[in-house]
Amino acid sequence: MTYCVGVLVEEGLLMVADTRTNAGLDDISTYRKLHHFNVPGERVMMLASAGNLSVTQSVLSMLSEGVPGDDGEPPLMKLIEAPTMFQAAQLVGRAIRRVRQIEKAGFEAANLRFSISLLFGGQIGDEPMRLFLIYSAGNFIECSTDAPFLQIGEHKYGKPILDRAVKFETDLYDALKVSLVSMDSTMRSNLGVGLPIDIAVSRRGALDLEVSHRIEAGEGYFHDLRERWSAALRAAHRSIPRPPYGPAPAK
Amino acid sequence: MTYCVGVLVEEGLLMVADTRTNAGLDDISTYRKLHHFNVPGERVMMLASAGNLSVTQSVLSMLSEGVPGDDGEPPLMKLIEAPTMFQAAQLVGRAIRRVRQIEKAGFEAANLRFSISLLFGGQIGDEPMRLFLIYSAGNFIECSTDAPFLQIGEHKYGKPILDRAVKFETDLYDALKVSLVSMDSTMRSNLGVGLPIDIAVSRRGALDLEVSHRIEAGEGYFHDLRERWSAALRAAHRSIPRPPYGPAPAK
Repeated sequence: MTYCVGVLVEEGLLMVADTRTNAGLDDISTYRKLHHFNVPGERVMMLASAGNLSVTQSVLSMLSEGVPGDDGEPPLMKLIEAPTMFQAAQLVGRAIRRVRQIEKAGFEAANLRFSISLLFGGQIGDEPMRLFLIYSAGNFIECSTDAPFLQIGEHKYGKPILDRAVKFETDLYDALKVSLVSMDSTMRSNLGVGLPIDIAVSRRGALDLEVSHRIEAGEGYFHDLRERWSAALRAAHRSIPRPPYGPAPAK
Repeated sequence: MTYCVGVLVEEGLLMVADTRTNAGLDDISTYRKLHHFNVPGERVMMLASAGNLSVTQSVLSMLSEGVPGDDGEPPLMKLIEAPTMFQAAQLVGRAIRRVRQIEKAGFEAANLRFSISLLFGGQIGDEPMRLFLIYSAGNFIECSTDAPFLQIGEHKYGKPILDRAVKFETDLYDALKVSLVSMDSTMRSNLGVGLPIDIAVSRRGALDLEVSHRIEAGEGYFHDLRERWSAALRAAHRSIPRPPYGPAPAK
């Protein structure tokens, strides 16, 4: 299982991704799911992946080495060469379709499901910063200012806090904090989502990463965030009056 | 869609259930999903249902009129006659299997999925209060003191707050409050879960309902709970320090 969230606020873009990969509960590994394609000063691009690990790795390799046309023919285009974020997202979609063409017969023979979903965001030159969610068919949607975040993988546990606390105007690092709380909620409920956590932050217009960091188990800030959030939640529901439906409480 | 939660704490049992039934987004109705089978002073039983409405209604009617043996033969037994909560839960399972026998051919012909899950809890005489989750195969699990709640339907959005805030020792009406927060989180994320909300509370040993209430849209307490919870969540994440990963914030 996987949980990744991408947030595009006024000040910039961030992604948070776990690293747990499992083929059954008895076969758990750590794999990076958050990747960067950067040319500082020219472009910054982040890509977070969920789904079948062989598929996501093949798509990433193809994006690095070059994606052929939908007919499988040259010319190849690398992600780093895409002229706009829209065309870059189209290229990611094309890479997914190409990997599907290659793997289709083998997956069907083994009764495997071809599954991949990607968060892809960034900025190229002086065009706007953008964030996309790309599906396994290669089609994609774009993040809006009304709901300035997108999620892939095990998204439900961590969605309520994002719904309530992240607006387009939210400070970039507050949005990162809320995303880490969202990740914490998910990790508590799904053992398939686990530490370490990779984070990436890019400020709008900077055309580079401001933060690229791995939060390891035991890291002080994240441990403290989990403790404080639990305590704050307990305090929060204590601050709500008792329901008026039963008998009055004994004094 | 449906969301129901049952909580069994030291002081007693409660259930919270929404009432929205839909066959597509363009066909939405209100149906009661939380039911009681009571003989005050002798027994109290609550049953909350999720799944195909025709199936859940048939199971309920059969539990009222009498469930035949697994061979479809008499003697019939009504839920209200079951001598213990364990045997009552077995009877609910038998009713599910019996309805499946009756509907199987028709469901298969129409390519319909036979789906039902039930929360069933209560107390009979001087035996312990119990809470069960009964699956569509008729098998069931029992709630434990380690995780004193069970959920059916759209359960993920509302689980993090229950995980953190409900313990076996939690006050009965605090547990009701947290369950309403859990319902609120679910309603915000899934339009298939909606008001009004039915609630039921039974204190351990009372052998009767202490509360049986329907929260309608616009009811003051629930509206206030939603507002306060949103405000408290915003305050809660403000109380967590800014992540230490980026540059220091401008003063």
